[in-house]
Amino acid sequence: MIILDDIERLLEYVGTDGKTFHAAANYIPKLSMADFDLALTEIKPKFGSPQDSLSLYYRAGLHSFGPEFEAVKSTLNALIHQVKANENTPLMSVLLHGEPGSGKTALAAACAVASEYPLVRLIKAADLIGRQEGAKCGHIYTVFEEAYRSPLSMIILDDIERLLEYVGLGPRFSNAVLQALLVLIKNPVPVLGRKLLVVGITSSFDEMKMLGLPTVFDVTLEVPLLRHPSDFDAVLVGAAVNIEPAERSRVVELLGQKPMGVKKLLLISEMARQRTADDHEEATTTVITYQRFVDCLYKFGF
Amino acid sequence: MIILDDIERLLEYVGTDGKTFHAAANYIPKLSMADFDLALTEIKPKFGSPQDSLSLYYRAGLHSFGPEFEAVKSTLNALIHQVKANENTPLMSVLLHGEPGSGKTALAAACAVASEYPLVRLIKAADLIGRQEGAKCGHIYTVFEEAYRSPLSMIILDDIERLLEYVGLGPRFSNAVLQALLVLIKNPVPVLGRKLLVVGITSSFDEMKMLGLPTVFDVTLEVPLLRHPSDFDAVLVGAAVNIEPAERSRVVELLGQKPMGVKKLLLISEMARQRTADDHEEATTTVITYQRFVDCLYKFGF
Amino acid sequence: MIILDDIERLLEYVGTDGKTFHAAANYIPKLSMADFDLALTEIKPKFGSPQDSLSLYYRAGLHSFGPEFEAVKSTLNALIHQVKANENTPLMSVLLHGEPGSGKTALAAACAVASEYPLVRLIKAADLIGRQEGAKCGHIYTVFEEAYRSPLSMIILDDIERLLEYVGLGPRFSNAVLQALLVLIKNPVPVLGRKLLVVGITSSFDEMKMLGLPTVFDVTLEVPLLRHPSDFDAVLVGAAVNIEPAERSRVVELLGQKPMGVKKLLLISEMARQRTADDHEEATTTVITYQRFVDCLYKFGF
Amino acid sequence: MIILDDIERLLEYVGTDGKTFHAAANYIPKLSMADFDLALTEIKPKFGSPQDSLSLYYRAGLHSFGPEFEAVKSTLNALIHQVKANENTPLMSVLLHGEPGSGKTALAAACAVASEYPLVRLIKAADLIGRQEGAKCGHIYTVFEEAYRSPLSMIILDDIERLLEYVGLGPRFSNAVLQALLVLIKNPVPVLGRKLLVVGITSSFDEMKMLGLPTVFDVTLEVPLLRHPSDFDAVLVGAAVNIEPAERSRVVELLGQKPMGVKKLLLISEMARQRTADDHEEATTTVITYQRFVDCLYKFGF
Amino acid sequence: MIILDDIERLLEYVGTDGKTFHAAANYIPKLSMADFDLALTEIKPKFGSPQDSLSLYYRAGLHSFGPEFEAVKSTLNALIHQVKANENTPLMSVLLHGEPGSGKTALAAACAVASEYPLVRLIKAADLIGRQEGAKCGHIYTVFEEAYRSPLSMIILDDIERLLEYVGLGPRFSNAVLQALLVLIKNPVPVLGRKLLVVGITSSFDEMKMLGLPTVFDVTLEVPLLRHPSDFDAVLVGAAVNIEPAERSRVVELLGQKPMGVKKLLLISEMARQRTADDHEEATTTVITYQRFVDCLYKFGF
Amino acid sequence: MIILDDIERLLEYVGTDGKTFHAAANYIPKLSMADFDLALTEIKPKFGSPQDSLSLYYRAGLHSFGPEFEAVKSTLNALIHQVKANENTPLMSVLLHGEPGSGKTALAAACAVASEYPLVRLIKAADLIGRQEGAKCGHIYTVFEEAYRSPLSMIILDDIERLLEYVGLGPRFSNAVLQALLVLIKNPVPVLGRKLLVVGITSSFDEMKMLGLPTVFDVTLEVPLLRHPSDFDAVLVGAAVNIEPAERSRVVELLGQKPMGVKKLLLISEMARQRTADDHEEATTTVITYQRFVDCLYKFGF
Repeated sequence: MIILDDIERLLEYVGTDGKTFHAAANYIPKLSMADFDLALTEIKPKFGSPQDSLSLYYRAGLHSFGPEFEAVKSTLNALIHQVKANENTPLMSVLLHGEPGSGKTALAAACAVASEYPLVRLIKAADLIGRQEGAKCGHIYTVFEEAYRSPLSMIILDDIERLLEYVGLGPRFSNAVLQALLVLIKNPVPVLGRKLLVVGITSSFDEMKMLGLPTVFDVTLEVPLLRHPSDFDAVLVGAAVNIEPAERSRVVELLGQKPMGVKKLLLISEMARQRTADDHEEATTTVITYQRFVDCLYKFGF
Repeated sequence: MIILDDIERLLEYVGTDGKTFHAAANYIPKLSMADFDLALTEIKPKFGSPQDSLSLYYRAGLHSFGPEFEAVKSTLNALIHQVKANENTPLMSVLLHGEPGSGKTALAAACAVASEYPLVRLIKAADLIGRQEGAKCGHIYTVFEEAYRSPLSMIILDDIERLLEYVGLGPRFSNAVLQALLVLIKNPVPVLGRKLLVVGITSSFDEMKMLGLPTVFDVTLEVPLLRHPSDFDAVLVGAAVNIEPAERSRVVELLGQKPMGVKKLLLISEMARQRTADDHEEATTTVITYQRFVDCLYKFGF
Repeated sequence: MIILDDIERLLEYVGTDGKTFHAAANYIPKLSMADFDLALTEIKPKFGSPQDSLSLYYRAGLHSFGPEFEAVKSTLNALIHQVKANENTPLMSVLLHGEPGSGKTALAAACAVASEYPLVRLIKAADLIGRQEGAKCGHIYTVFEEAYRSPLSMIILDDIERLLEYVGLGPRFSNAVLQALLVLIKNPVPVLGRKLLVVGITSSFDEMKMLGLPTVFDVTLEVPLLRHPSDFDAVLVGAAVNIEPAERSRVVELLGQKPMGVKKLLLISEMARQRTADDHEEATTTVITYQRFVDCLYKFGF
Repeated sequence: MIILDDIERLLEYVGTDGKTFHAAANYIPKLSMADFDLALTEIKPKFGSPQDSLSLYYRAGLHSFGPEFEAVKSTLNALIHQVKANENTPLMSVLLHGEPGSGKTALAAACAVASEYPLVRLIKAADLIGRQEGAKCGHIYTVFEEAYRSPLSMIILDDIERLLEYVGLGPRFSNAVLQALLVLIKNPVPVLGRKLLVVGITSSFDEMKMLGLPTVFDVTLEVPLLRHPSDFDAVLVGAAVNIEPAERSRVVELLGQKPMGVKKLLLISEMARQRTADDHEEATTTVITYQRFVDCLYKFGF
Repeated sequence: MIILDDIERLLEYVGTDGKTFHAAANYIPKLSMADFDLALTEIKPKFGSPQDSLSLYYRAGLHSFGPEFEAVKSTLNALIHQVKANENTPLMSVLLHGEPGSGKTALAAACAVASEYPLVRLIKAADLIGRQEGAKCGHIYTVFEEAYRSPLSMIILDDIERLLEYVGLGPRFSNAVLQALLVLIKNPVPVLGRKLLVVGITSSFDEMKMLGLPTVFDVTLEVPLLRHPSDFDAVLVGAAVNIEPAERSRVVELLGQKPMGVKKLLLISEMARQRTADDHEEATTTVITYQRFVDCLYKFGF
Repeated sequence: MIILDDIERLLEYVGTDGKTFHAAANYIPKLSMADFDLALTEIKPKFGSPQDSLSLYYRAGLHSFGPEFEAVKSTLNALIHQVKANENTPLMSVLLHGEPGSGKTALAAACAVASEYPLVRLIKAADLIGRQEGAKCGHIYTVFEEAYRSPLSMIILDDIERLLEYVGLGPRFSNAVLQALLVLIKNPVPVLGRKLLVVGITSSFDEMKMLGLPTVFDVTLEVPLLRHPSDFDAVLVGAAVNIEPAERSRVVELLGQKPMGVKKLLLISEMARQRTADDHEEATTTVITYQRFVDCLYKFGF
């Protein structure tokens, strides 16, 4: 239900898995929060639908690990529910921050797909490349205006530091885009009865604080890195990485020595899998050894 | 009577509540200040009228609390009256400042709606997004020119730091817009008999002082935060938040530990109300518990 | 005789008060300086004439106070006379500086109206808002060119720091406009027999010194603030503020504690007058009390 | 197979040497890494084909020297293989850095030619000269878009510091281009099944770190300078520089005193060869003496 | 012979005083330097001719005072002669510097008028106001190109700091114009047989040194201020200021206490003359008293 | 043979002196270096040919002095020969640096004229005045492209600091032009068999080092000033300055006290010659006295 203009088009895209279709067809604002958790595990984006553009951000699945991550996910879903269910909070905003590769965009995209909001838009820097400052602001403004025309919308501002063209050397950034965001995130929804949730994402929280950006969000949430062996274990198991349990224990023990983003762990696992397959000439079935995993780990600068 | 071009159109918008209509139809400059206080409580903006665009800024009502806030409101109304009633002060200006969320714009908007000025304009940053500097100045200039064509006008400059595109890192700001404001706020009304009140609003008073902006205003007023338990109590009661008095006492006691803007308090109250309703499946009638309120409070980073 | 293109149009505007008309019709360069003082008190700008645009700058009259102010006025008039009467000084320039609200523009405008120069132009920042730098310079240049086509001209550069878009934070300013002024103020009148007096006005003298601007003026004069009780008394009497002499003594005693611009004193007086009138429901006739005056004084941040 | 739009055009360019043709015609994703090493030695770019534009970067051949250089080459080839063979890592990126003249571009170009990727693009600063910032970003963006339309692509970003117009004095750089690279190097390939390897090249690693560029690459590799006599010896032998072994020993002993890029060594050798030829009037056959070589060495500021 | 396009037009403008006409008509390159001194005193610019535009710069005459000033004038004339008479020095340049009002432009203009060069051009900042940087450079370039088409030319760069838009605060300046001057002042005259003398004028020598400008001039000369009583006396006598000798002695004694530019002294003298005339109602014939002179002196901030 | 588009046009320009014509007509790449030295003394540029535009840079001849200067000239010619004679070094570059007036451009221009390269281009700042940055880069790029179309080319980058618009105050410079040069000087000649020598010239070596410019040149050479009496003597004799040998000894003794560029020495000599001629009324035949020479020397600030 991403990149949709109206609720009718939504129905085409969601497809045939009963429950989701039903929820969209009988658009009912008062869903309890339990629906979200259900939806999140149930949604199965299908090849070729626009939903894929959001699902690209969590290709390898959304792997839960530890209570910290769960708390963040739960609060995000509570806010999604608050805007959906309540008529007196027509505008809310939340900022997700955390290290690069910690899975912020994956989390936001997965929750958005599960939210059953009739309109979800992701604003990303790749859409702004090479445009003049005015055109960048115009693009962002247009997305907000589109949202104002929909009864219930979510706007995800991905990688805000890139939208702002922020660079620490100087520092430099697009003040025009910064100001547009500072204004639009707080701008009262101009039509009575329309509702909007803004989800900001950044991996440069300290820099964004210097720019005064977090203060315009109602709530701020930090998405954690993998830190404890149990965190790593949860992801390796969740992603079905083929290592013997005993070897996996040794691997997560090693990994637990320093924090890592979930994205990097998945990349390393995939490389270990491929090299194992190459050696055995029979892909995807072979078990990855501790040594193989560690080799790949060091190749990525561990 | 907001976003009006002439006094005739005013009559269409105000509607049928006798007194207001009368006042507008028989435009009489010599109203005593008591009229204002009356008007402020009496005005009931109706759905669909342009007045709504100003009323969006005080959706949850204008909740008075404590003598400090009252003094600010009273001085603002005195200035509104001075320009309206006196022919020798055709141009006056006042700067409202205070922390974000302290209700500055709500106050100015509510007083403007109650003022019965034939022309009220709110200049806000959202109207300037993505425009060139020259076009921004042009937009502001056009509003002032429009005011010069009306016998009695009020211009509200909302969030001046955003109009200026001010950011502390650098600092950077639009000097063109700053200069336009410095000039226009002091610019003598060019036609004899026309009168104008300029109301500036900022939550970055210290920064605006560095830019020399407060010196061009005749009067400067600070809108306070909620500080004392009694302040919080007044708002919770005023907004009819459904908590038992005893629990409310405990809540305001806790809240009194640090200052908060009225806007945030209303948002937290609404979230507590919604979550209570979710649990009981019967919205708006349930009583909010102390614990529920405090949970929401901490979610918003208290 | 302001904003005139030629001496014929001058006659239309000045009107029927005998002496002024006569002076303009028989344009005689060799007037003694006494004529100026006479003219200054005698000129009565009439509603609807272009002269009004200059008279807007001294609506509440030009109130003399103390010898310092008189000395400035006398030197300014001497320079006006020198350019008018002498063929060997075809270009002179004077810079009036002083605190905001000290009445610099009022003084220059009143002297210009009294000067009987066939062409007087006031260049003000409001005419430049939103223009490109090149267009700003072009506007200023055009006014000088117009002056070069007239036998005797005066150009008033009002609020030079605003023409320059000067802001202390940075500092920033329009170097293009600065350079245009530095060049034009000293530029020899290109046609033999044409004469020009340039009057600059600034309330940011120290900043203008950093920009090297005062050095291009032949003479520099400081317009003083009201400082002594007698200064305040002179203005209150001159403006016919209705206070009992004994109360007025107490008022000026209080006011004498810190300097104030004449503009602010007049504004406060007017507000005191209005509030007195409001209370008694019979405007302009009531006597202002000491207490009323002091209340208004404190409202304006005394 | 450089600067190709589709796999059909590839076949025309590669020519008649059996194995390479075969590999391209039967595009098989699961090649073992050994194929690469074979291909790298086997490819013989022919005069007139577009391949020449990449082969210009290793005109004098790719001369291996020492284990450090071999390790870099091997890891680069492993990444080329990973993207080619694996469907779960559709986007990978590697940054090659090292001193100017260390042969980074030669290595990347040679590996790319040997990779048998259907689409290889080299983005170089010479293509951006004199363009506006927007046009520069547009050029880079277009190359990435082209890659997204091909099943398997490699993009070489040559001399990133020049693409960014980086200069240490200031420092200055094109933030627009920097941001475009930061975004595009990490941008998920927007179509399922398409794969892309990005190879960045820089000789200003520390400066690029200040700009945050290395963090967007998955892997970072340093291409070493020639340091040990054996390194120099390997290159002189590899490039068939005509010196008697005994004299060559003395030469490499001297050269081993300080590090040098392979590019400079080849230039010096060529100059020594030419001067020897000039003296004997019979080019290419004469033996270079130790003295001749050292003379040329000092001419180049050794 | 100023602002001329060819030698024919020169003849029209110079007029009927025999010697000058003759010199121009029989354009003879080998004049001895004595001719210059003669010409300088002999030339009498006539009303209405283009020559007047240069003569505007020495309206009140060129008053010699003291040996320092004479030495500067003599060297300038020697360079004018060198370029005129010698075929091997087709390009020479000299920089005149000194305090504002010291008479640099007057000196250059008077020598240029006396030089009998067929083409003299004065480049001044007033011609550049409001133009884009490119257009400014274009204007300057065009004047040099015009000079290259004439057999013998002089270009006067008046007030170089204004041409550069130099301001100490920053500092800021037009680098484009600076570079154009740095290049053009040294640019070899591109046609054999054409000759050019460039005369630069600045009152900001130290700032121009920071910009590296003096190094492109072949010779640098400082025009002095009036310093000694005898300097002041020479000018007062030369300008025929009507003071009794005894009073003049007292005046010059006082003036000798601090340096002054010749321009200011002439302005003060003229004001004293006018005020004397005003008092006596009979202009130009009255004697100026010591007291009158000193009054005017203090008015100008002595 | 300067500013030529093809080898045919070359023949027209070189003229009738047998040897040079022959060399050009039978374009033979393998000339020994001795040919260059011969050519350098033999070339006699004729009036009216494009060659003159290069010969303008050494109007007064190329005067050799001392071994340092000879070494520089010899290395430059060796590089010219290397590119001409060798097919494996299709791109080489050399940077000539030294004090202003040391004769760098004269040396490069004279060697270029003698080189018999079919295409020689001098890129100079005068060609870039008033152009936009993009157009400047475009001009430079076009010259390189033209060179790539010719079998053998030389590009002289005259006064690189002026091409870059470098000024120490700031410092400021055109980064676009800098980057274009950094890229183009190293850019591999894109067509097999075409060859290019780039000769850079700068008198701001330290500043260029800060910009990283020297590192892109293969070789760096410093052109010395005149320092020793024998250096000055060589130039005075070479330029046939007419002083008695005994007096010349005294002159060079004095000159040897501080370094001087050859350009200034020639200018001073010419002025001394002219003044001597003026005195005697019979030009070019008179002997210059020691005193005359010294007078001129001091006029130029010795």
